[in-house]
Amino acid sequence: MPEKRHQVVIVGAGFGDLWAARSLRDSPVDVLLLDRNNYHTFFPLLYQVAAAELEPENIANPVRSILRNFKNVRFSMTEVRGLDPTGKVVETSGGSVPYDYLILATGSTTNYFGVPGAAQHSFPLRTLEEGIALRNHILGCFERAIHEPDSDRRGSLLTFVIVGGGPTGVEFAGALSELVQGPLKKDFPTLDVRQVRVMLLEASGGLLSVLPERLRRYAAKRVGRMRIEVRLEATVSSVSPEAVHLAGGDSIATETVVWTGGVRGDDQVASWGLPMGQGNRIAVQPTLQAPGFPETYVVGDLASLTEDGKPLPMVAPLAVQQGVAAARNIGRQISGKPLEPFRYRNLGTMAVIGRNAAVAHLFNRWAFTGFFAWVIWLGIHLFKLIGFRNRFLVVTGWAWDYVFFERVMRLILPTEGGDMRPR
Amino acid sequence: MPEKRHQVVIVGAGFGDLWAARSLRDSPVDVLLLDRNNYHTFFPLLYQVAAAELEPENIANPVRSILRNFKNVRFSMTEVRGLDPTGKVVETSGGSVPYDYLILATGSTTNYFGVPGAAQHSFPLRTLEEGIALRNHILGCFERAIHEPDSDRRGSLLTFVIVGGGPTGVEFAGALSELVQGPLKKDFPTLDVRQVRVMLLEASGGLLSVLPERLRRYAAKRVGRMRIEVRLEATVSSVSPEAVHLAGGDSIATETVVWTGGVRGDDQVASWGLPMGQGNRIAVQPTLQAPGFPETYVVGDLASLTEDGKPLPMVAPLAVQQGVAAARNIGRQISGKPLEPFRYRNLGTMAVIGRNAAVAHLFNRWAFTGFFAWVIWLGIHLFKLIGFRNRFLVVTGWAWDYVFFERVMRLILPTEGGDMRPR
Repeated sequence: MPEKRHQVVIVGAGFGDLWAARSLRDSPVDVLLLDRNNYHTFFPLLYQVAAAELEPENIANPVRSILRNFKNVRFSMTEVRGLDPTGKVVETSGGSVPYDYLILATGSTTNYFGVPGAAQHSFPLRTLEEGIALRNHILGCFERAIHEPDSDRRGSLLTFVIVGGGPTGVEFAGALSELVQGPLKKDFPTLDVRQVRVMLLEASGGLLSVLPERLRRYAAKRVGRMRIEVRLEATVSSVSPEAVHLAGGDSIATETVVWTGGVRGDDQVASWGLPMGQGNRIAVQPTLQAPGFPETYVVGDLASLTEDGKPLPMVAPLAVQQGVAAARNIGRQISGKPLEPFRYRNLGTMAVIGRNAAVAHLFNRWAFTGFFAWVIWLGIHLFKLIGFRNRFLVVTGWAWDYVFFERVMRLILPTEGGDMRPR
Repeated sequence: MPEKRHQVVIVGAGFGDLWAARSLRDSPVDVLLLDRNNYHTFFPLLYQVAAAELEPENIANPVRSILRNFKNVRFSMTEVRGLDPTGKVVETSGGSVPYDYLILATGSTTNYFGVPGAAQHSFPLRTLEEGIALRNHILGCFERAIHEPDSDRRGSLLTFVIVGGGPTGVEFAGALSELVQGPLKKDFPTLDVRQVRVMLLEASGGLLSVLPERLRRYAAKRVGRMRIEVRLEATVSSVSPEAVHLAGGDSIATETVVWTGGVRGDDQVASWGLPMGQGNRIAVQPTLQAPGFPETYVVGDLASLTEDGKPLPMVAPLAVQQGVAAARNIGRQISGKPLEPFRYRNLGTMAVIGRNAAVAHLFNRWAFTGFFAWVIWLGIHLFKLIGFRNRFLVVTGWAWDYVFFERVMRLILPTEGGDMRPR
């Protein structure tokens, strides 16, 4: 009679989840991965979808294809509705799923920090749906602007305010500026592109605060040259349908506020009876176990952990490393070995600012700027895009755009909750 | 003082509309093209989007890119809400648009022939949104089927009924069968694909009735080999959420009825005061003018015209030819020359039945089957895909799939009105 195999349930289809599943592929366990979507989103390139630079399909990969060669891993497309960490059962839209070990990596959502109107009137950029909705909205603004007789309203339609000067904010501002100055300028010959404003608001004193001084200076110079208006020490006090209001009284008339300002743990997790920390995240032990629930591991953005007194960042490489570490600790736990604490290996930070320009800080030691940094960025992102066919199509598409300065993704395609119809 | 130029308004962004605009590019007129979408859909390949074989972006092209080099042609993304053919004004969501000449080509919509429940419970396949919604639904059926314990319900989830044995029905049935036998078989290793039924219902005595006997025989043989169950002389009497019911009493339990059975003119046109003919279409004069309104031209699926006693088909090549003809007649009308009647040049009929197999009847004279017909089909469709970048990506994607038997478009992406969440 075969021994009963341990059941490991993984909740989510992000970086941490998939790498955890991969790491368990040769272990004597049965793995079930649950997610409400049947695809994995390559989040680091989501901003390019919002800027009509990549097709949504280029950064989404079917989970079943990714898992296909892992014989002990199954997938179920289902909505997780609850968790009983004591009884070890996950409640889903398809019924109850019992587990022996759980890896929780439902990721993060946008943090509006309680700014009034921000959640209602700004565009987040965390999911594929949100990326498509933002793209549709931006293209729709141009379509409406060209037959808007009132110049104030036209100005408001053509003002795009990005909140947050971290990598996502800077990268999206750069990509949007290139979209405007390139393809949209050609598409809307009757429109004066000088009327278009791309604004980047940052609450602190500088952009990309995680990077060293030299790279920050380069980025600031580059961003300035791309006609992006940067406002530092600009704190958003509220957002309305027609404007973003700043502390100090200023306000900017706009129909497009893109909120890249913060992240917090997935909302529904708070009701699951696990000990919650700051920012709606679970303060895990160094072994990645949830305090009090030794069979529950938490990885990725949802896990809050400090190392050498500093909180770990919410980035994809960390999630990958934690997914692998949690899988290994489950193996140790099953075979009765002592668990090992997680240590983050920081590979560095990068941001791309536009065509041929990026900043890269590798292993927190080597700093690169300009074209060479862009090539490194391109190489790493292509290498990491799961699925070789996607990589292949992304490269051919990019090569095309690079040679012909063209983007043909400027489609206002239907999406749920997207603002896409002309008013 | 420059002479006042005539204003030509074109309603729609289909084949007829774009070719009419192109034909007017050197005429002394100002052209304004109106459509509610900012893209042109390459309808002949829509069924491949629904079968997860092409990305929606591959068959959609931004209208502004297409029109970019035509200096006297402008585009406005707007919803047409009404028409006053006597006062010569188009009412749109962006205001009133006066015209001197009008080309109306709003196309067609699905004709359910009054079959009870058909409009509510079956999937049409006429627009990009509908193609995406159908793809999402089909993939969702598989996701639900694998954790459905009840075998009757599982059977119903895995039964796909296609109504209509014309080119769209046959092509979609073939593509769906290949999707099931190829990628989905690999994606769902625990599922027995023999449980999957792809059924094709045709009311008449044979598939592809427009083709000559030899091609019909070949198509029928090929379709049978692909595990498609064909039922001829099967008339649908009603459709419910759980089944399709046939005249004679039979019923088939299914959650997926794809309706390719018929087309009719766009609904809203009936309220515009133009003389309507059968099937909600406008019975135009041989010059393509609407009877009684010499400045209003109607082309494409919306125009109903007989030639040598036979009604002209509702196909893309006809729309292209009519768009060009209408543009030329407007030129003649402006310069006071006599108008010319339209004559259809039938280039032939083709249908692709699957990997490497098609039937082609060129110029109603030469008949081809098999691989050679498939190559002809591929060449013509690639040649006709507007936008070279799309053509290039479609070819690279196809080449990839061809070599690796893989399709990576199996994403259940969000769309308006699509049934995509697991229940």
